[in-house]
Amino acid sequence: MHMESLHDLFVNELRDLYNAENQILKALPKLAKSCSSEELRQALEEHLEQTRGHVERLEQIFDKLGLKARGKKCEAMEGIIEEGKDLMDEDLEEAVLDAAIIESAQKVEHYEMAGYGTVRTWAERLGCHEEAELLQQTLDEEKEADDKLTQIAESAVNLQAMGAGR
Amino acid sequence: MHMESLHDLFVNELRDLYNAENQILKALPKLAKSCSSEELRQALEEHLEQTRGHVERLEQIFDKLGLKARGKKCEAMEGIIEEGKDLMDEDLEEAVLDAAIIESAQKVEHYEMAGYGTVRTWAERLGCHEEAELLQQTLDEEKEADDKLTQIAESAVNLQAMGAGR
Repeated sequence: MHMESLHDLFVNELRDLYNAENQILKALPKLAKSCSSEELRQALEEHLEQTRGHVERLEQIFDKLGLKARGKKCEAMEGIIEEGKDLMDEDLEEAVLDAAIIESAQKVEHYEMAGYGTVRTWAERLGCHEEAELLQQTLDEEKEADDKLTQIAESAVNLQAMGAGR
Repeated sequence: MHMESLHDLFVNELRDLYNAENQILKALPKLAKSCSSEELRQALEEHLEQTRGHVERLEQIFDKLGLKARGKKCEAMEGIIEEGKDLMDEDLEEAVLDAAIIESAQKVEHYEMAGYGTVRTWAERLGCHEEAELLQQTLDEEKEADDKLTQIAESAVNLQAMGAGR
């Protein structure tokens, strides 16, 4: 895709996020399955459900823009997920594995917060107010998911990990 | 490196961040050189200076832990920087290029916010209070850098881009 304008950049980033969300849809069930904390598993399963909604919102936006919904390989998300998989392959104690899963999931959330924050701002500047509204809804959900993971990290999981792992 | 405990995970993530910071040290000057906004260039150059401090803090922490300072290839940061380079190679209008540079820099910041937030929490749980304090300082600077970029994105750059790009 040849890019010149902010509109081109906007579409390019929507495609990056569309690919990233689809990578997350594949990766999240495996993370949720590997958890030992019930609270963490629930948080990841809820976020999996939200992620399906994020994909649908992006499809609505492509539709509004008169474009076919298609992704563009997001190398950053590939790297984040790859590093997460490497940790899952280590011989970690249950609670330490949970700490690693939270870390990986928070990197995913932060990548998306940066991406959605950017496209939301660009949509506003381009006068695409309905699109901006949809992107803001997803951004809010990503932030909430990240906050939830921080809460879990700061409570039980790490305390358990400290006991089990040292 | 074989990992079992939260301490192992902590060291693993410090090495990931050490490599990420060193990748950023190489990439930031090129981004700053490509800017047309003076405000953006200044923000990136200030952050380059801060990044040198972040590398030094990590070296202090490795030293406190009795470990050699060394990195472990951070694939996520490679992906973020690679995607940024691809955008730099496009034939973008000056102001649109600035918007792309901000996007790329904010992805870098968010990756680091996730990473430093994680190791700060783990350091506290492991009783490494001095290390936690150093990591918190870097985390605060990463957040400030991200806020500054958001301010720039929301003001001149995108308004110019809208005029130039549509």
